[in-house]
Amino acid sequence: MPGALDELRSLVRREGAGASLTGWLDLPLAPKSEVEAIADAAKRVQDENDCLVICGIGGSYLGARAAIEGLPKEASFPVIFAGINLSPEYHARILAGLEGKRFALCAISKSGTTLEPAIAFRLLRKKLIERFGASDARKRIIAVTDRSAGVLRTMAARESWTDFTIPAGVGGRFSVLSPVGLFPCAAAGIPIRELLDGAAAALGRFTRDDARNEAVRYASLRHLLHRKGIAIEVLSTFHPELASLCEWWKQLAGESEGKNGMGLFPASTVMSTDLHSLGQYLQDGSRDILESFLSAAEPGTDVTIDADESDLDGLNYLAGARMGEVNRKAFEGTREAHAAGGIPVLTIETESVTPGSVGEIFVFFEIAISVSARLAGVNPFDQPGVEEYKRRMFKLLGRSGKP
Amino acid sequence: MPGALDELRSLVRREGAGASLTGWLDLPLAPKSEVEAIADAAKRVQDENDCLVICGIGGSYLGARAAIEGLPKEASFPVIFAGINLSPEYHARILAGLEGKRFALCAISKSGTTLEPAIAFRLLRKKLIERFGASDARKRIIAVTDRSAGVLRTMAARESWTDFTIPAGVGGRFSVLSPVGLFPCAAAGIPIRELLDGAAAALGRFTRDDARNEAVRYASLRHLLHRKGIAIEVLSTFHPELASLCEWWKQLAGESEGKNGMGLFPASTVMSTDLHSLGQYLQDGSRDILESFLSAAEPGTDVTIDADESDLDGLNYLAGARMGEVNRKAFEGTREAHAAGGIPVLTIETESVTPGSVGEIFVFFEIAISVSARLAGVNPFDQPGVEEYKRRMFKLLGRSGKP
Repeated sequence: MPGALDELRSLVRREGAGASLTGWLDLPLAPKSEVEAIADAAKRVQDENDCLVICGIGGSYLGARAAIEGLPKEASFPVIFAGINLSPEYHARILAGLEGKRFALCAISKSGTTLEPAIAFRLLRKKLIERFGASDARKRIIAVTDRSAGVLRTMAARESWTDFTIPAGVGGRFSVLSPVGLFPCAAAGIPIRELLDGAAAALGRFTRDDARNEAVRYASLRHLLHRKGIAIEVLSTFHPELASLCEWWKQLAGESEGKNGMGLFPASTVMSTDLHSLGQYLQDGSRDILESFLSAAEPGTDVTIDADESDLDGLNYLAGARMGEVNRKAFEGTREAHAAGGIPVLTIETESVTPGSVGEIFVFFEIAISVSARLAGVNPFDQPGVEEYKRRMFKLLGRSGKP
Repeated sequence: MPGALDELRSLVRREGAGASLTGWLDLPLAPKSEVEAIADAAKRVQDENDCLVICGIGGSYLGARAAIEGLPKEASFPVIFAGINLSPEYHARILAGLEGKRFALCAISKSGTTLEPAIAFRLLRKKLIERFGASDARKRIIAVTDRSAGVLRTMAARESWTDFTIPAGVGGRFSVLSPVGLFPCAAAGIPIRELLDGAAAALGRFTRDDARNEAVRYASLRHLLHRKGIAIEVLSTFHPELASLCEWWKQLAGESEGKNGMGLFPASTVMSTDLHSLGQYLQDGSRDILESFLSAAEPGTDVTIDADESDLDGLNYLAGARMGEVNRKAFEGTREAHAAGGIPVLTIETESVTPGSVGEIFVFFEIAISVSARLAGVNPFDQPGVEEYKRRMFKLLGRSGKP
């Protein structure tokens, strides 16, 4: 039976299950001209608007949101994710929030028919036209879609919207380093060249043919633990700005591996917040959990704890300490405690959270999860189970034809 | 072996494991004078400030946040939760956000020594004094704490802060209907009398000695399924405003049952968002999941989908439909599909999300989880596992003495 290193080799050779969907391995090496075109369009959006509204869901927004929320210093231009729900409360709030704002609208979808972003795009296009007139509205719309197929491509061509292409061979959850993730990131203010450079370096590092390759080790470990009865992987982070990166990972892991009645269930916690809700369970509940910590050695900013004359709260032993240190000790104490409580723990650590390291984290997980899915004998790149609810939903909605 | 109805009877009689911590059963019947005192103090906060900042974590904030985010129409006065993390990024952002704002500060903690809120309270107290002077700052601080013990009680007495008492016999995760949850809710603008009235009605309904009692049925079902190998309960909602209510439930379920190497792992999804990340897994991954849907029959607001002349996006079959209907069909289609995919599903449904129904949901889950924990033979009201990481963290931080 092939091991993790064999699966990595086959992935790098673009062979094996789902080989036609390994185009994401090329994304970190995007040509300069493409990156500049994205950055230029993003700059125009910033110059002419108060915010950018994205209509995309799943793989068409989770990566961008992960990077944008992970990099608050860089991402200072407001980006709103409007296509992720069917809740009327959610749409009413977004529409109200856009009153009086100049906004650009970006639809991200391979087909253009995914229900949530398609509905949001229709609602918001109407609002944009009411506000700016058809001609000016046209200049504020950007489409990120398939090169030639689908209704969004047809609309973009007919209306002469600015457009970017989702490369063939790139599935939704592996698309963050294509225009799907890059355009919203660039509009937010993230230097996407640095993001890609970090990703390109990681591509070299995590495809190297060496059993000590960390992506290979992570893939092997989670596969072995699942075979030994571990049911759940909890990705825990003590960096709340990485909460959305954990959500991106949940799609990557859950959709790549959760098939044929198998797969680690992907969950996440944001610490130390969730220590005060899930800490008891992680310490002492069912012992079928792998806890993986996503960590940055250095915080991006810091706050110092001052001395207090009365010391009634008894915190003066921390006087002069930086919050980042205290947070680090909480992380280390928790990791020790959970390991002592009998669950396997592992740590994925980067130096600090920068555009480059976010690019690196994306590539690390993409490679590792692809390898571990293949170790489990499944195609990492399909998602056969997502049609079932659509079929039933469209039937209930009275729509005929194919989902 | 006692069944769920036996465990309910014993709970109502204040007997069985953890009997001394069943004071939460009295909370819905709070005297009028107490409720009015809370509402009056909340009114003063609103009149004199731009926002209220809460320093509390775990059971000292999750319930209030659940109600406040669940009731956006009622909760219009800004409430900020500042005590839930040790991340410097998080604290720097909160401090920056308070620049130029008039704020009141509320510390919620039984002891006053829980690290995250204690640090936040020290930082923010200093900021309040710098801004308003010691005397005015004193009038802007509210303490919710134990009647007599603990450093927060000592500080409140010395500084003459407004204070409310956490009743004896009420553990953190069961405290939402005490001043712990009621004061922040009232300050946000929620009519807490309605919340309590809904809770009181639910107390009658879900303690009734009848095997058809829904809390008893839910408790039995989850206990039986766990015994039969179900490892995870996913609480799914198609109402994104209930996301924090799901977080509150995760603490309630995980901390009450996750002990002695047992317990359903509590996870949650916010639909339809997470259908596009965890949908594949729920449809087709490991079959060790119970999916419980938390639903409201009627949306609180609505948005209509308009016809579009060109219909390029093909959505005209929905023209004239209300978003609430479409969301409902998505829910029904998903529930059917997941059941057909082979996981047990159940639905907890209320008429609509109102202060009364939020109170009802709190009581429903509190009773049901207490019963199912006792069915598993554990004390629902303790949390022995939460000391271990604290012991190690405090050692790493160089603090001596008891955690």
